[in-house]
Amino acid sequence: MNTFQMVRGMRDFLPEEAKMLRLIEGKARRIAQLYGYEEIITPVVESYELLAAKTGEEVRSRMYAFKDLGGRKVALRPEFTASVARLVATTMRNAPKPLRLLSIGSLYRYDEPQKGRFREFWQSNFELIGSEKPEADAEILLLTNSLMKSVGLRNYAFKIGHIWVLRGILNREGLAEDVQNRALQLMDKKQYEDALSLVKDAGASEKCLMLLQKMVNVRGCNLSNVLGEMKRLVEDYSEASEAVDNLAEIIELVSKAHDLDVMVDAGFARGLEYYTGMIFEVYVPELDIALAGGGRYDRLVELVGGEPTPAVGVAHGLDRIMLALQEQKVPIEARQEKTVMIISVSEVLNREALKISEMLRAEGIPVEVEVMGRKVAKALETANRKGIAYVVIVGERELKEGAVTLRNMEKKEQRPVKIEELAKAIRTGLN
Amino acid sequence: MNTFQMVRGMRDFLPEEAKMLRLIEGKARRIAQLYGYEEIITPVVESYELLAAKTGEEVRSRMYAFKDLGGRKVALRPEFTASVARLVATTMRNAPKPLRLLSIGSLYRYDEPQKGRFREFWQSNFELIGSEKPEADAEILLLTNSLMKSVGLRNYAFKIGHIWVLRGILNREGLAEDVQNRALQLMDKKQYEDALSLVKDAGASEKCLMLLQKMVNVRGCNLSNVLGEMKRLVEDYSEASEAVDNLAEIIELVSKAHDLDVMVDAGFARGLEYYTGMIFEVYVPELDIALAGGGRYDRLVELVGGEPTPAVGVAHGLDRIMLALQEQKVPIEARQEKTVMIISVSEVLNREALKISEMLRAEGIPVEVEVMGRKVAKALETANRKGIAYVVIVGERELKEGAVTLRNMEKKEQRPVKIEELAKAIRTGLN
Repeated sequence: MNTFQMVRGMRDFLPEEAKMLRLIEGKARRIAQLYGYEEIITPVVESYELLAAKTGEEVRSRMYAFKDLGGRKVALRPEFTASVARLVATTMRNAPKPLRLLSIGSLYRYDEPQKGRFREFWQSNFELIGSEKPEADAEILLLTNSLMKSVGLRNYAFKIGHIWVLRGILNREGLAEDVQNRALQLMDKKQYEDALSLVKDAGASEKCLMLLQKMVNVRGCNLSNVLGEMKRLVEDYSEASEAVDNLAEIIELVSKAHDLDVMVDAGFARGLEYYTGMIFEVYVPELDIALAGGGRYDRLVELVGGEPTPAVGVAHGLDRIMLALQEQKVPIEARQEKTVMIISVSEVLNREALKISEMLRAEGIPVEVEVMGRKVAKALETANRKGIAYVVIVGERELKEGAVTLRNMEKKEQRPVKIEELAKAIRTGLN
Repeated sequence: MNTFQMVRGMRDFLPEEAKMLRLIEGKARRIAQLYGYEEIITPVVESYELLAAKTGEEVRSRMYAFKDLGGRKVALRPEFTASVARLVATTMRNAPKPLRLLSIGSLYRYDEPQKGRFREFWQSNFELIGSEKPEADAEILLLTNSLMKSVGLRNYAFKIGHIWVLRGILNREGLAEDVQNRALQLMDKKQYEDALSLVKDAGASEKCLMLLQKMVNVRGCNLSNVLGEMKRLVEDYSEASEAVDNLAEIIELVSKAHDLDVMVDAGFARGLEYYTGMIFEVYVPELDIALAGGGRYDRLVELVGGEPTPAVGVAHGLDRIMLALQEQKVPIEARQEKTVMIISVSEVLNREALKISEMLRAEGIPVEVEVMGRKVAKALETANRKGIAYVVIVGERELKEGAVTLRNMEKKEQRPVKIEELAKAIRTGLN
């Protein structure tokens, strides 16, 4: 029966877990409202070419890619940004900027399954499109902070860098983009030695190698010190130097007034190749995977056929946030609505029971109908186990008087109630 | 740039459409609450074998099937029921029955794109598992009715049948299951002549052919007449006769007390092979595709490795319901939250503006920050175009007094407001 098992790396969310994921999703939607982001929905299946563009070798090699029945090379999206860029470059080409867009859904990467890492995963993705200002970068950081705070996460911290600090140095050495990409991929995986030897083999100067060696060790939470040190190190590299200034501006906007826990990391790189500016990730001490990641990508919209359009965005790993909350034992306040069960004492009364159940639901009262043909005593046991608040018992005698029996399960009391007063009686009791 | 286009048959939901889809999704969740269904989330990618089991040749041949990087034959789910059955047969094997489970998400079929039919589509899927009683079938019909009513749909009607009316006849003739399946597939597509000649070639008797010929013409809204006619026609066929009795019981439960518009169709078949009892679809006059479809499938859980478990369910086509509402010009009441825009008169005040925006959001007020570096006059124009209710202008002079300028966009009035009173001033104005 193995063929009927779940596919390796995939995941089922049972009711408690699904409720938690949907709650976090709801929080992300609320954050979108508060920051003025509108939701769009793009397909899971996109052209391989689109998804492969600038997504980086790491992600590219792990896509679920295949040919559809029409022979098109397609893939399941490994991230949202390419799809959003496509939409901005095509259908939404003429929409006034800035565009603030939210996407929520599932994504797919053939990674090795491990704690917190599934091959199907969930994200809320915020993109602020059309602004090159540091306020836009700051907004993405702030809304990420708001989301983490609103779900009740503790001890989370931002790791922030700027991709042009490294690219500015590599560029000056005249290193080809693909060499840069591979070097940054290695740095993303903290394989600094491999990165340096790759750069060396590609012809980088001794000075560059020394600088990179120093750079990847500059990090910390004393922001002005770290930024000062970065600035000093890259003083001969104008692009890298501008990148540090830009990073300092962004951090100035977010770090003081808002309670963000920020660590700047000069050697920080991210796997995606489309970044052109500030990049960041969010971590908690309990997990070694990022809960969120994002950055500025000023050239992607143009690359997929649109106008030159600056943009910055973030993806929040919803199932990872859920795991972090579980690790931190943060209680998720799912408002548990009290529910009612309805039973009839004999089968001939089932139609009446259904009718009453529909009447109660029309009044906004959740009702479960007994559909197993259980006797009243047995059904009451079930109701008890399930934490049902009230049981409505439909019996012949009461029904003749236009009434039913209403049982308060907690108080273990029951009394006859007229059908037309039933909703009110239950609601009074439920509140 | 063709490779960067959307893949044929797929679909983007722009903000207005996404809002509408999410609203309908929210209605489905509310119905789930009212009827006691708990949400689960199963993966989009499942084993091909699972999805192919009993799904029917029609659907099977149109699946997005491929091998993953580990060589597993997988497919994108074309429907939810197989996944739910898998979960019930495995992880939830010991969960007490009845189980009421909701799934919401996207599904994939390589159909020819046409109005209302995309290759990625959205459903809410309700499954009531563990009960063989007609009350369970009735519940699935009633909750479908409640969903259609709650979104504001008009003139929708239920088409109901019972798969064993036809199977009971074909079975008696000793026709193999695959012949039956093919015949029912043809009937599903209303190719009755082809179905009859297939059955004839497989060795069905003249009597059977005559009966089927009559059967496929028995339909109508005069329920007792139609059910009576069906009963009379199948009197020599015990299984088919029991099916008619079962159908009559279910219809008795839903048709009188509740305002369901029901048409019984004796020759009704559905494409999925796993049905074993009542089947139904929902239509509106404006569209020739079903908005919902479902039925009883008492053997699927066992087939995928679980205990024998009766079950009945329904899938609601959320994007189809959305299209039907658009066709019927039903207004969707999306509560439009009033929003605030914040602008600073010079860049040095941007940090203050961000701080104030975060303060307002913490009070639950949606705020859009000006991030395009626009001057106040230009920003006010934008705010006007976007229907922003209030603009907060952060200026140097007011800020020294701990105040900002609050502009009511509708009244075109502005006044200085202390920052600590800003949230209250806006909220008073917004309500």
